[in-house]
Amino acid sequence: MKALVKTGRAPGAELLDVDIPTIGATDVLIRVKAAAICGTDIHIYHWTPFAQARLKPPLIFGHEACGEVVAVGDQVTTPKLGDLVAVETHIPCGQCYQCQTGAQHICERMAIIGVHTDGAFAEYARIPAVCCWRLSKDTPADLGAILEPLGVAVHGALSGEINGKSVAVFGCGPIGLFCVGVVAALGATKVFALEPNPTRLAMAHRLAPQARLLNPAREDVVRAILEATEGRGVDVSLEVSGSTEATKMAFQVLRRGGRVSLIGMPSAPVELDTPEDIIYKEATVLGCTGRIMWQTWWQMQYLLESGRFDPMPVITHRFPLADFSSALELAAGGETGKVLLYP
Amino acid sequence: MKALVKTGRAPGAELLDVDIPTIGATDVLIRVKAAAICGTDIHIYHWTPFAQARLKPPLIFGHEACGEVVAVGDQVTTPKLGDLVAVETHIPCGQCYQCQTGAQHICERMAIIGVHTDGAFAEYARIPAVCCWRLSKDTPADLGAILEPLGVAVHGALSGEINGKSVAVFGCGPIGLFCVGVVAALGATKVFALEPNPTRLAMAHRLAPQARLLNPAREDVVRAILEATEGRGVDVSLEVSGSTEATKMAFQVLRRGGRVSLIGMPSAPVELDTPEDIIYKEATVLGCTGRIMWQTWWQMQYLLESGRFDPMPVITHRFPLADFSSALELAAGGETGKVLLYP
Amino acid sequence: MKALVKTGRAPGAELLDVDIPTIGATDVLIRVKAAAICGTDIHIYHWTPFAQARLKPPLIFGHEACGEVVAVGDQVTTPKLGDLVAVETHIPCGQCYQCQTGAQHICERMAIIGVHTDGAFAEYARIPAVCCWRLSKDTPADLGAILEPLGVAVHGALSGEINGKSVAVFGCGPIGLFCVGVVAALGATKVFALEPNPTRLAMAHRLAPQARLLNPAREDVVRAILEATEGRGVDVSLEVSGSTEATKMAFQVLRRGGRVSLIGMPSAPVELDTPEDIIYKEATVLGCTGRIMWQTWWQMQYLLESGRFDPMPVITHRFPLADFSSALELAAGGETGKVLLYP
Amino acid sequence: MKALVKTGRAPGAELLDVDIPTIGATDVLIRVKAAAICGTDIHIYHWTPFAQARLKPPLIFGHEACGEVVAVGDQVTTPKLGDLVAVETHIPCGQCYQCQTGAQHICERMAIIGVHTDGAFAEYARIPAVCCWRLSKDTPADLGAILEPLGVAVHGALSGEINGKSVAVFGCGPIGLFCVGVVAALGATKVFALEPNPTRLAMAHRLAPQARLLNPAREDVVRAILEATEGRGVDVSLEVSGSTEATKMAFQVLRRGGRVSLIGMPSAPVELDTPEDIIYKEATVLGCTGRIMWQTWWQMQYLLESGRFDPMPVITHRFPLADFSSALELAAGGETGKVLLYP
Repeated sequence: MKALVKTGRAPGAELLDVDIPTIGATDVLIRVKAAAICGTDIHIYHWTPFAQARLKPPLIFGHEACGEVVAVGDQVTTPKLGDLVAVETHIPCGQCYQCQTGAQHICERMAIIGVHTDGAFAEYARIPAVCCWRLSKDTPADLGAILEPLGVAVHGALSGEINGKSVAVFGCGPIGLFCVGVVAALGATKVFALEPNPTRLAMAHRLAPQARLLNPAREDVVRAILEATEGRGVDVSLEVSGSTEATKMAFQVLRRGGRVSLIGMPSAPVELDTPEDIIYKEATVLGCTGRIMWQTWWQMQYLLESGRFDPMPVITHRFPLADFSSALELAAGGETGKVLLYP
Repeated sequence: MKALVKTGRAPGAELLDVDIPTIGATDVLIRVKAAAICGTDIHIYHWTPFAQARLKPPLIFGHEACGEVVAVGDQVTTPKLGDLVAVETHIPCGQCYQCQTGAQHICERMAIIGVHTDGAFAEYARIPAVCCWRLSKDTPADLGAILEPLGVAVHGALSGEINGKSVAVFGCGPIGLFCVGVVAALGATKVFALEPNPTRLAMAHRLAPQARLLNPAREDVVRAILEATEGRGVDVSLEVSGSTEATKMAFQVLRRGGRVSLIGMPSAPVELDTPEDIIYKEATVLGCTGRIMWQTWWQMQYLLESGRFDPMPVITHRFPLADFSSALELAAGGETGKVLLYP
Repeated sequence: MKALVKTGRAPGAELLDVDIPTIGATDVLIRVKAAAICGTDIHIYHWTPFAQARLKPPLIFGHEACGEVVAVGDQVTTPKLGDLVAVETHIPCGQCYQCQTGAQHICERMAIIGVHTDGAFAEYARIPAVCCWRLSKDTPADLGAILEPLGVAVHGALSGEINGKSVAVFGCGPIGLFCVGVVAALGATKVFALEPNPTRLAMAHRLAPQARLLNPAREDVVRAILEATEGRGVDVSLEVSGSTEATKMAFQVLRRGGRVSLIGMPSAPVELDTPEDIIYKEATVLGCTGRIMWQTWWQMQYLLESGRFDPMPVITHRFPLADFSSALELAAGGETGKVLLYP
Repeated sequence: MKALVKTGRAPGAELLDVDIPTIGATDVLIRVKAAAICGTDIHIYHWTPFAQARLKPPLIFGHEACGEVVAVGDQVTTPKLGDLVAVETHIPCGQCYQCQTGAQHICERMAIIGVHTDGAFAEYARIPAVCCWRLSKDTPADLGAILEPLGVAVHGALSGEINGKSVAVFGCGPIGLFCVGVVAALGATKVFALEPNPTRLAMAHRLAPQARLLNPAREDVVRAILEATEGRGVDVSLEVSGSTEATKMAFQVLRRGGRVSLIGMPSAPVELDTPEDIIYKEATVLGCTGRIMWQTWWQMQYLLESGRFDPMPVITHRFPLADFSSALELAAGGETGKVLLYP
């Protein structure tokens, strides 16, 4: 089969002919119908320190995927042959304290598909049965491919109450866009979308027309938010950008007693003025990663079935897998929504 | 009356004869029976940048106090003449969002007794009626004087679940000691007390014999805690020291999904590795300040009535107010528990 | 002034000329601009056992009201002369455990305006300052008059999570209608409105077109809800009807682990099969009464400012106070939304 | 092997020689070292309507058990041969909404060992691997056998906050006794133990000397609790008796805003005065069943390791399996703590 392989410890990747994966007793084999590019994939392609610290080439990468089950291992009871599934990237051990207490998504011995095991930028992929979320047959494969990143947004946004709250979303890359759309759909009464890139701000507007758009490159966003909240600040900050500057702002615009959910990954340590930012303010700061298995997936299913929010407009570009290079460079440019690949 | 006055913008303080305060319609006058020295008082005495940024001399300082009500304003319905009261240091505005939603202790327009208004290192003190907690007549005045700082510990420790949890307390000054005692009394199944000063560690041992004592000056406390928790880390870190090093350790020893409550005030910004310390770990970080009015006070009353915890051994020194200089220097030395003054 | 007075212990009421109320030091006098009829008012008018157990005539009744402050007591700092205010019906003591721990709305010594003190079906009403919620000057008086009952719905609906949940609302009287509108506006992904009266069901449809309408007089609503939820049942039941039959159904349609909020007041004891309805199912059952002071009012303000929900269509009839008899009988008929009176 | 078999649809049971169970790919075989008698076993033995509605003889009953793993199925990775395990009685399906969202203990398709499948009153028992909790080798088998019922108490007691709370426990059978011991160990500041049987009350005293003992057969317990709580009522009622009278009392002694956890199973419907008992009071009522998998088991492990509570004194009688008849009748008599059987 064709597969996009990180062949060496250097920038780049190669589209190779490789064997279709063999599966173990608890795995399934899926025929990949669509896969989406994640920031992690760009790290791998560019061979950044983040990737260097985690990856052992050669490895097929890619992990946001939707596919049809074409083979099942001996011990697999679900999913079934022919099922359409979305891939949950995190492979929990099932045995640690976290796995045993409803927090598999922060398993102590987590492995990640497309980082620690061969991934989904390929015609076929071996996926542990425990990482499959079954979709109804009529689900568009494109939608299935973006559920994993949508789940990051749903989990992060709903890690605390948003009903009747003012919410500021820092960063309007794909996950930030999902956040804006989700909180606007699910009961936030005031939404601020912050992003320096005008293209992405415009996307936020299309997803949530009621959101107030703020460009930190052009205006004093802290002042703007404080003025729009009677000087009090927002109830909730969702930090999705990974920028250290944005992280600091996320605290500055927060009202006393508010919540900051940290979703984006800064590449450098963040210096916080903990007395002013957290202690006197009694801020609640929540780290958010991945998706709660399977609560977040159920939330997505209910949300999508209800028609309250349509994430599809976040997909802006589609390429055949062979054009991976253009696709990855485009996604890295920071002007797109989600970029999809079709093996 | 005699009162300890911060007379100028320089180190030191003077014991002066001043007029007994006049009270407003919503105030009471108390005859101070005992007052305790807080870290803030030491800042004021030493005229640190912290104090310089907050205080406008001349001002009577001191705010952890117990006294008898000897006069009441026209509009005061409670407390009554003759009541014994402990002082809640925070004067909430009663009108802001926080005050109207059960969070007066993080009022937007908070004033603090002994910082923004004349305080309690004096024979008499004017206290807003709204800042009085009534005590039963037989409550020792010494106990009444330490309820305010005990409340900081109770509020911080109980800002999340401690039942059946492993808890590490960073710093065994008076509030850290209270934390150790409270979590040991109220259901923590494993308690670690961390403190470089052997005298204070020994006090932690007397308050909670089951606590494991760890001295970061002498051993690798992160390793010790991880070993004692099967490599998983503690469920809860209570950071009471205000040390940036301890703050970092509080995150390092935390298990995935754990809670860090930040109670102590660092004097410098803290640089956090938010991906490792908070995000991947899905830590919950809570700023904790003051006492919830009046939930924390009720919790203290119930706790003390039950006999589960006796905070009195944390009081190690007692001085007449005239010896304020010795008392403040001793308290500043970091070898004591609570130091009390009697006007 | 003109006032509607319950003059004796028998059905009926009289519109009398009485003195304008004198106010105490902590009261304000409002000129009533609009008042709404509550179920309690109908009980009083019809002199039901519910009213007989609570009321001591003579008394001016009515408590859902909006008015302008025309006089303020000596000790009142807020509201100010000229302010437009909505009335919070519950007068908390301010001293009991509940009042001191953020739960004034379940005060142990609660008094109720229009039940224990003279109320608002009059040209002027004496209102404790502590029961006034300030409105912006441009708020329609009709809206101000229905905030109190809207608050019952907001408090009850938001007593647990509704985001991404399926919610069944039992009863579409005014408060049930508010519930339907609020949960549809604030993130419920599936809404069921249950009501035997077709007129009221049609109102539910106008407020929340996405709600599924179910008439228990015409169909097997338990089966219909189970079928519409894959046999699992709803996440949340809001019981607003006070009917014992509906209360039982609220449990029968609940999924394992779901929540029932009891808002409507049954006039007879309810026999529950606690093992099947609550224990095996691990139901969470929440009693809900009144409005959290002032959290619920802030939630309403944010909700209304956002434009997510407009409660005004729930007002269906308007009468001058002189036509109280027609208004009360109409409201008692069960075919209306909110009925307003104008003194 | 010897096994206690419910052979027919009539009172009684027979100790028979039967084949050692064969196990499936996901099962283990344990050699039973100790088993405890549950109320359900008495229902089965006496062939009550409760048993008649659930059981299809012939069936080996008994489900509270501790044993050594002597064979493992092909697909089992844990537990291992030779492991000592306690049995979790509930067999979750793993596929339903509840199983996928951290609530396996309220699985929609739950099967129960010793009720729906052959149980543990036998020399050997087939147990699904997913129902095994691994114990350290030095755990006494008697302790292992009572973890399942202890878990019911831990789960019920900790279904809400008990720290610094007043708690009334209704019923001092084995699970009630565990509740009394656990809440006293874990931070309740006032504990009331209610039970008509003086022998059991005396056991409550030995487990928790600080608990106040109340005998509803001899005194007005509602008045006693109200007097002991300043007329306010308790923060938490744990209803463990299953008595309808006790259930009503559990609400009557509750303070406004308090919690009732329903743990015991009434055999008849309970008539509740929902306005007075739940709505005006804003009670939180929680159904509690089984043990959260595996959070409750981890809580037990931490609790037992800490030495804060020793449940062993609740075991009062021990019999060889051959004396099952005496053991079951004794346990049915209501004068014992836990009764153990040894196959």
